[in-house]
Amino acid sequence: MVSGAAPRYNPAVNPHHPAHDLDKFHEECALFGIYGTSDAAAHTALGLHALQHRGQEAAGIVTFDGRHFHNHRAAGLVGDIFGEQSVIATLKGYSAIGHNRYATTGGSSDRNIQPIFADFDFGGLALAHNGNLTNAYLLRKELVRMGCLFQSTTDTEVINHLIARSSYSPVVDRIIDALGKVKGAYSLLMLTAEALYGVRDPMGVRPLCIGRLEDAWIITSESCALDIIGARFVRDVEPGEIVIVDGQGLRSIKPFAKQQRRFCVFEHIYFARPDSKIENVGVYEARKRIGMELAKENPVPADVIVPVPDSGVPAAIGYAQKSGIPFELGIIRNHYVGRTFIEPADHIRHLGVRLKHNANRAHIDGKRVVLVDDSIVRGTTSMKIVEMVRSAGAKEVHMRIAAPPTTDPCFYGIDTPEREKLLASRYDVAGMAKFIGVDSLAFISIDGLYRAMGMPGGRDAANPTFCDACFTGDYPIALDDLNDTEDRQLSFLAEPA
Amino acid sequence: MVSGAAPRYNPAVNPHHPAHDLDKFHEECALFGIYGTSDAAAHTALGLHALQHRGQEAAGIVTFDGRHFHNHRAAGLVGDIFGEQSVIATLKGYSAIGHNRYATTGGSSDRNIQPIFADFDFGGLALAHNGNLTNAYLLRKELVRMGCLFQSTTDTEVINHLIARSSYSPVVDRIIDALGKVKGAYSLLMLTAEALYGVRDPMGVRPLCIGRLEDAWIITSESCALDIIGARFVRDVEPGEIVIVDGQGLRSIKPFAKQQRRFCVFEHIYFARPDSKIENVGVYEARKRIGMELAKENPVPADVIVPVPDSGVPAAIGYAQKSGIPFELGIIRNHYVGRTFIEPADHIRHLGVRLKHNANRAHIDGKRVVLVDDSIVRGTTSMKIVEMVRSAGAKEVHMRIAAPPTTDPCFYGIDTPEREKLLASRYDVAGMAKFIGVDSLAFISIDGLYRAMGMPGGRDAANPTFCDACFTGDYPIALDDLNDTEDRQLSFLAEPA
Amino acid sequence: MVSGAAPRYNPAVNPHHPAHDLDKFHEECALFGIYGTSDAAAHTALGLHALQHRGQEAAGIVTFDGRHFHNHRAAGLVGDIFGEQSVIATLKGYSAIGHNRYATTGGSSDRNIQPIFADFDFGGLALAHNGNLTNAYLLRKELVRMGCLFQSTTDTEVINHLIARSSYSPVVDRIIDALGKVKGAYSLLMLTAEALYGVRDPMGVRPLCIGRLEDAWIITSESCALDIIGARFVRDVEPGEIVIVDGQGLRSIKPFAKQQRRFCVFEHIYFARPDSKIENVGVYEARKRIGMELAKENPVPADVIVPVPDSGVPAAIGYAQKSGIPFELGIIRNHYVGRTFIEPADHIRHLGVRLKHNANRAHIDGKRVVLVDDSIVRGTTSMKIVEMVRSAGAKEVHMRIAAPPTTDPCFYGIDTPEREKLLASRYDVAGMAKFIGVDSLAFISIDGLYRAMGMPGGRDAANPTFCDACFTGDYPIALDDLNDTEDRQLSFLAEPA
Amino acid sequence: MVSGAAPRYNPAVNPHHPAHDLDKFHEECALFGIYGTSDAAAHTALGLHALQHRGQEAAGIVTFDGRHFHNHRAAGLVGDIFGEQSVIATLKGYSAIGHNRYATTGGSSDRNIQPIFADFDFGGLALAHNGNLTNAYLLRKELVRMGCLFQSTTDTEVINHLIARSSYSPVVDRIIDALGKVKGAYSLLMLTAEALYGVRDPMGVRPLCIGRLEDAWIITSESCALDIIGARFVRDVEPGEIVIVDGQGLRSIKPFAKQQRRFCVFEHIYFARPDSKIENVGVYEARKRIGMELAKENPVPADVIVPVPDSGVPAAIGYAQKSGIPFELGIIRNHYVGRTFIEPADHIRHLGVRLKHNANRAHIDGKRVVLVDDSIVRGTTSMKIVEMVRSAGAKEVHMRIAAPPTTDPCFYGIDTPEREKLLASRYDVAGMAKFIGVDSLAFISIDGLYRAMGMPGGRDAANPTFCDACFTGDYPIALDDLNDTEDRQLSFLAEPA
Repeated sequence: MVSGAAPRYNPAVNPHHPAHDLDKFHEECALFGIYGTSDAAAHTALGLHALQHRGQEAAGIVTFDGRHFHNHRAAGLVGDIFGEQSVIATLKGYSAIGHNRYATTGGSSDRNIQPIFADFDFGGLALAHNGNLTNAYLLRKELVRMGCLFQSTTDTEVINHLIARSSYSPVVDRIIDALGKVKGAYSLLMLTAEALYGVRDPMGVRPLCIGRLEDAWIITSESCALDIIGARFVRDVEPGEIVIVDGQGLRSIKPFAKQQRRFCVFEHIYFARPDSKIENVGVYEARKRIGMELAKENPVPADVIVPVPDSGVPAAIGYAQKSGIPFELGIIRNHYVGRTFIEPADHIRHLGVRLKHNANRAHIDGKRVVLVDDSIVRGTTSMKIVEMVRSAGAKEVHMRIAAPPTTDPCFYGIDTPEREKLLASRYDVAGMAKFIGVDSLAFISIDGLYRAMGMPGGRDAANPTFCDACFTGDYPIALDDLNDTEDRQLSFLAEPA
Repeated sequence: MVSGAAPRYNPAVNPHHPAHDLDKFHEECALFGIYGTSDAAAHTALGLHALQHRGQEAAGIVTFDGRHFHNHRAAGLVGDIFGEQSVIATLKGYSAIGHNRYATTGGSSDRNIQPIFADFDFGGLALAHNGNLTNAYLLRKELVRMGCLFQSTTDTEVINHLIARSSYSPVVDRIIDALGKVKGAYSLLMLTAEALYGVRDPMGVRPLCIGRLEDAWIITSESCALDIIGARFVRDVEPGEIVIVDGQGLRSIKPFAKQQRRFCVFEHIYFARPDSKIENVGVYEARKRIGMELAKENPVPADVIVPVPDSGVPAAIGYAQKSGIPFELGIIRNHYVGRTFIEPADHIRHLGVRLKHNANRAHIDGKRVVLVDDSIVRGTTSMKIVEMVRSAGAKEVHMRIAAPPTTDPCFYGIDTPEREKLLASRYDVAGMAKFIGVDSLAFISIDGLYRAMGMPGGRDAANPTFCDACFTGDYPIALDDLNDTEDRQLSFLAEPA
Repeated sequence: MVSGAAPRYNPAVNPHHPAHDLDKFHEECALFGIYGTSDAAAHTALGLHALQHRGQEAAGIVTFDGRHFHNHRAAGLVGDIFGEQSVIATLKGYSAIGHNRYATTGGSSDRNIQPIFADFDFGGLALAHNGNLTNAYLLRKELVRMGCLFQSTTDTEVINHLIARSSYSPVVDRIIDALGKVKGAYSLLMLTAEALYGVRDPMGVRPLCIGRLEDAWIITSESCALDIIGARFVRDVEPGEIVIVDGQGLRSIKPFAKQQRRFCVFEHIYFARPDSKIENVGVYEARKRIGMELAKENPVPADVIVPVPDSGVPAAIGYAQKSGIPFELGIIRNHYVGRTFIEPADHIRHLGVRLKHNANRAHIDGKRVVLVDDSIVRGTTSMKIVEMVRSAGAKEVHMRIAAPPTTDPCFYGIDTPEREKLLASRYDVAGMAKFIGVDSLAFISIDGLYRAMGMPGGRDAANPTFCDACFTGDYPIALDDLNDTEDRQLSFLAEPA
Repeated sequence: MVSGAAPRYNPAVNPHHPAHDLDKFHEECALFGIYGTSDAAAHTALGLHALQHRGQEAAGIVTFDGRHFHNHRAAGLVGDIFGEQSVIATLKGYSAIGHNRYATTGGSSDRNIQPIFADFDFGGLALAHNGNLTNAYLLRKELVRMGCLFQSTTDTEVINHLIARSSYSPVVDRIIDALGKVKGAYSLLMLTAEALYGVRDPMGVRPLCIGRLEDAWIITSESCALDIIGARFVRDVEPGEIVIVDGQGLRSIKPFAKQQRRFCVFEHIYFARPDSKIENVGVYEARKRIGMELAKENPVPADVIVPVPDSGVPAAIGYAQKSGIPFELGIIRNHYVGRTFIEPADHIRHLGVRLKHNANRAHIDGKRVVLVDDSIVRGTTSMKIVEMVRSAGAKEVHMRIAAPPTTDPCFYGIDTPEREKLLASRYDVAGMAKFIGVDSLAFISIDGLYRAMGMPGGRDAANPTFCDACFTGDYPIALDDLNDTEDRQLSFLAEPA
């Protein structure tokens, strides 16, 4: 889900938030649902904790205890929100769904924290969403015209109203009816008095998988959330599949027309946790293979391979193994950043203050250094890191990137800067190298990326198997809202500052 | 507004809240709206502060700045929520409405704090309500069946959905259409981009008045909220009147069929502030006249007239003046109670701990004491005060009450205990005297009350001019929800503990 | 105790604190100690709550459980600090002392909250102080020169160091040795592993009394703190007396040379609670007698006697009874002020915003009004109240004050403005009347005050029985620090803003 | 500094604190001082942030602005305490000292947060301490006997009182006089109105170094704190040296008898940050060399070298490079732990919940795995990690430790469990291998450790150049307090729970 159905072209993102690295793409959400255990909320909190990398702004859990739903949602990290036993104790029930939310712009008010809950004529329903609908604004306008009152500015709430107004029965048919009207990328969890539902959009852009823990079923974004509670990985939810878990066990329907699978390749490059297995691929291993392919495509004589911590490490290990050049932690990261930190006065900042990173001079001074990073977004962080490495005495600095140049924004649930802020849309590779100040810069090719993902022939342009729109501009799902030219104010209520 | 359309028969009220005197009826809300000043929020905060006696649980303000609505709502006292200039500064605009809410049971979750705001096809609308709808549950059931999603459990939100689904135009006609469907006691404020609306139900059960401050118009519950900002009292809003303030000034319509005025007499007896003028009557003066009438009806030889502080003071002064017996502060109140206080262990409590009151022994010891109080609800506080006065040495203790016996609950916006907890519904006057431990007990008669209110003939049973249902059981507005026999669960979401 | 041994000539008092009425003198502390009950902390918290009027900034309790001392001190009201059972539960023990502190200037940092605790070679000792030492700065300078490290800026800590360095034994002799070196007004409580000590300075300027609850002994500032826990008043501690309570019961010594008793008369006029009995006089009764004497000395033809709430009420009742003019609540006070409140913008403030008071127009309009107040300090509040009463339509406004003009600051434990800010030191009575805008102004005479206190001959100038320095400039205890001309920086550590 | 001069034999350490890894030794403090810049507090906050790994419980900064000292100390992380510009703004001045404190047991009350400040006859002095005095308890007893009042339970305060009572002059001579009486390991910073002082004990057990930033001088625990503000490393403070920085620049005295240098070798093994240079050795490089030496001493046929994150990484890289076996991130760490986290119910915990680590199955399953860690303390974490690696499918698990067995507690400023809880004091290596469940276990030898530190001949038992007491029991500084047999209650005041 994102706040506002339309792509955000002007994010005034909070620059003080330590988790907010302006120079990365950001996954916007994590999902975890469980059915059939007396500790549903505790398991869900643990699962959300394992998925914290997918969203750090806020989190919520809704449970059902056989009579009532229970709800707790707040801004902050999962451990801070759900770390107290007293909070978990109020979330009674044997089924639960939970959601992590990324620190986005504008719509960061409490009313947008998920799961969202509503009372229908058939009873309560809680809903959590990872992805982004591409016709939500148009649908919302129509629904408001018909007398619907929205309580949030998320695209997700459109689904709720479509379910409320659907004349079908039973609930699953109302869900199918509603989803038949939305376009976009989505993985969804829903919880009713009767069942837990898991859904993936017909192209399967966002991940969702199934696990088992004793008698309980779990549906969650990544397999690492199964590991933390000792659950067993069963399988991925299929694109276009609706999985229903209730007292009779798990069953599955596929009510939508079959389409080509287009899983988001950036999940493999950066978003997913390295210890997760997604779409049958181990993420750490995939990143190492990208690093190896990168070394093959873009070799360079050097003394040391240095990862940009922490996300560059697996590709750097692959690059080092392939190239035979030693791997060293040439940049050290300080993990104690706290909630916020000093915005130092100008003359202090110009000293080159480094709250997060420091060069490990012993392995940099006098060396030819290859920096390996996962991607370049705006390039500002890369520039600072190169400057830091140079001032620690590097003789040469070469940058190798484990992704193709990111030229296009994402409209399918990832927070990306507007196009003009993407370094790769402003410069060619030579210009980018100059901007960040390296002796050489190289990216893996789009075909190299597909090879590393196990397609020896590279990308099949006629029928690509991933969503790679951020590298190619090839958007597989129609962008209706984007093409609508009307003013798109969602609410007349100002968001809190 | 109240949470839940039906009367609350089993309130598990927070006994730790110092403002919560279980032995009083409680007003449930206050309203303050202003149109046409650059400091709309600051004035509204001051007005709500003056009306704090009508609700201490939570408060909210919504403003409109010509483009956006701004909203801040929180639990606590007005001074704590809106006391900081930084909060007021976020509430930009030249028009505003605000609401105080009483510490009720159950529905005390944040989602029920008013004003409630929603986006309609015509734009935003904020709504604040003092009173209680008596057919809200039935309407809600019907609306949910038609696909409406409710975000709160207040009766007030029904009005919102009725407006959203109305096919009339312009906005004022949608409001009239919606109000035509609801029954109950209500004073309402609404704020749109175009106008501020003030409405009183056709019987005028709850108060609402109009004031003027330079070019700005104010609509608020009591005149004391005009005094605090130096505004001038203009007139009461009439029963059944809709007042509309916009750039053209103030105009008025009366779209509903005219009915007998039935203003709540308990506002005069206890709820309203003594310095307010309501329905053309000064409240302090009315209470003194009740005390005088009480002295006439129920004289007793005594040495001293002692008010039960603070609400019994005006009637005690009236009683003293009429009877010629000296008035003394025989009971001293400690105003520093803090947010919560020790629930002392049993053996300490049995020492007779008195957090709020202490007897002023010099004026009690050896005296024949007349205690004057405004009303008796459960009788438990009266019992403790009588015991305290006796243990300070009183020779005789006589209790005189400036209201008739309260035998029936209120369904029109006042928080009252269920009928079985009302002392007057369990005992006759002799039994009540025994329960609270006095030598004599007397109440003003219902006719005496009407006489004190300026009707020399007493109550005209065929055509009474006040709502006095709590004394007479004569309910002037139909209680549809109460007579509906279905289960009345409003939401499947459990309220926070 | 006060922060800084020297009188404060320029208090930059927090104007936002709602409890801080700049136009009153302020008592600076309250004491409550108990020995011999298993709920020592709970009783102490209740006692401090009853004494909240003597200090609202901060409070602390130290208990002793037979092995360890336990300590909790914080800023805020007693009910907020000690209202939770969980806090009381940590304060184990059968003996305790507690302290309320007034919101003074400068030294409001946490390190100055009492009781102060220290470890001596003989064990732990906690100390709480009401009053002010007049040679503390000189003593402190000397002690620092000898190698003592101070942890606070209170005058009270001097006593601690004097005890620590005393070579006497046992503890009581060290206390006597220490107190023999200090000058000033003080009531003290001390708690050691063996005993509870209560001390009053040789002139008995500040109050202290003894109570009994079953087997426990209590020593506290006012008798109302005995009432709240159902304890029995035994007697006042005598001037110059040290009372010692331990396992053997209560004993008393009087080690200091006997001096003329000089109890602070302002305790009777304003500080003490009306339901307390102090120095054998009921406070409410004393205030009424002052009001009667005032009516005798300064009669005026009028329609209504109106107290300035809340402290003017008893004197107003006395004035009304003596004069035969009706007593009415012509000014209504709003008790819900919250922790802080809006400092409204200038143009709002000029509307005459009244957060605390409102005129009750019905009893003011067209009337000749006598306002009765307890004292005039700066006169600014009086001026505003007169203006409010006039704008409510009063025909004449006469002010009668139940104290002589306050011409001189206090150096004995009361927070007073510097002399130049005292209205009575700037103007004669006619000038004061003009300043506050009344038709007539009168004060009780100093002889009238003594008569009301039971001395038919008025004040015996050779041998006055009260400390009345604030009215007469006759300071009974030497002001050594004041006469020392050195710079008087107590600490190089800046106080928190 | 530690709380209580004696070693803590029974630490009831808070098991909920996420930073508290019970299975590591813990550095207890960090120091940062600066003299001669207008942003002294901001620089100090940045320096303390870089040193956060040395203490996470609390932090404090004292500055001097030419007239007053300013002080802010609180529990929490540096970024949370000092991250707001408004806090830094109150800490005015051109000189400052700061301190980080580790989450120790007992003495965690606020009164023990450093720097401690006191007013002396010569003016103010702030003091911060890294290390532990071994005769502090004996000195304290003596000082209390002489009339000193202590405000904390830290050993550090003893120094303050010794300075206060010293009859020498000027200040530096009082400091020398005081330090002449204390024994133990200490690095100290002091700040007076005139100067910044840095001191290292005669054996130089704890680190301290000097840096330069434009005109300002810095004295701090590790060089990484210089890097963060762009300052230049100048040199280490020498054992026994007192460095004095004032308006005249930096000068140095060495007033104590010269002794053999005995720097703590565990700083190199685990405490210091890998990017710091300490005692002329780069820490990351030292750890890699230890890993290489370990591989030489204890080879094993295997498929993969896996570091226990994060501290095992450098040694694992060294081990991998030396052995030629591939290095892989076989264990993934979750860095989002939040402040606290669920203590899951028993049956959940038994599922093997892993809040911090997860196995990266792709690199474990079917492999012979060598786990490399920096040390083993209690062995409980090692056991869980081995179990996790086995359940991810490892064929063999070998553990290699980059330190000798830790058999003895530290009394020089490091928080270690009591001896009986140290795994190496309970079992021989075979027993330890069985306890943690590995196929083989090996430690680097003490001689191997010295070789890795650059001493080809290994450890010279007659004249070792490091303090290695935790491996050898050879304590270079006398443990007076430990050998004193009296009861050692420091204060009769109970610490907060």
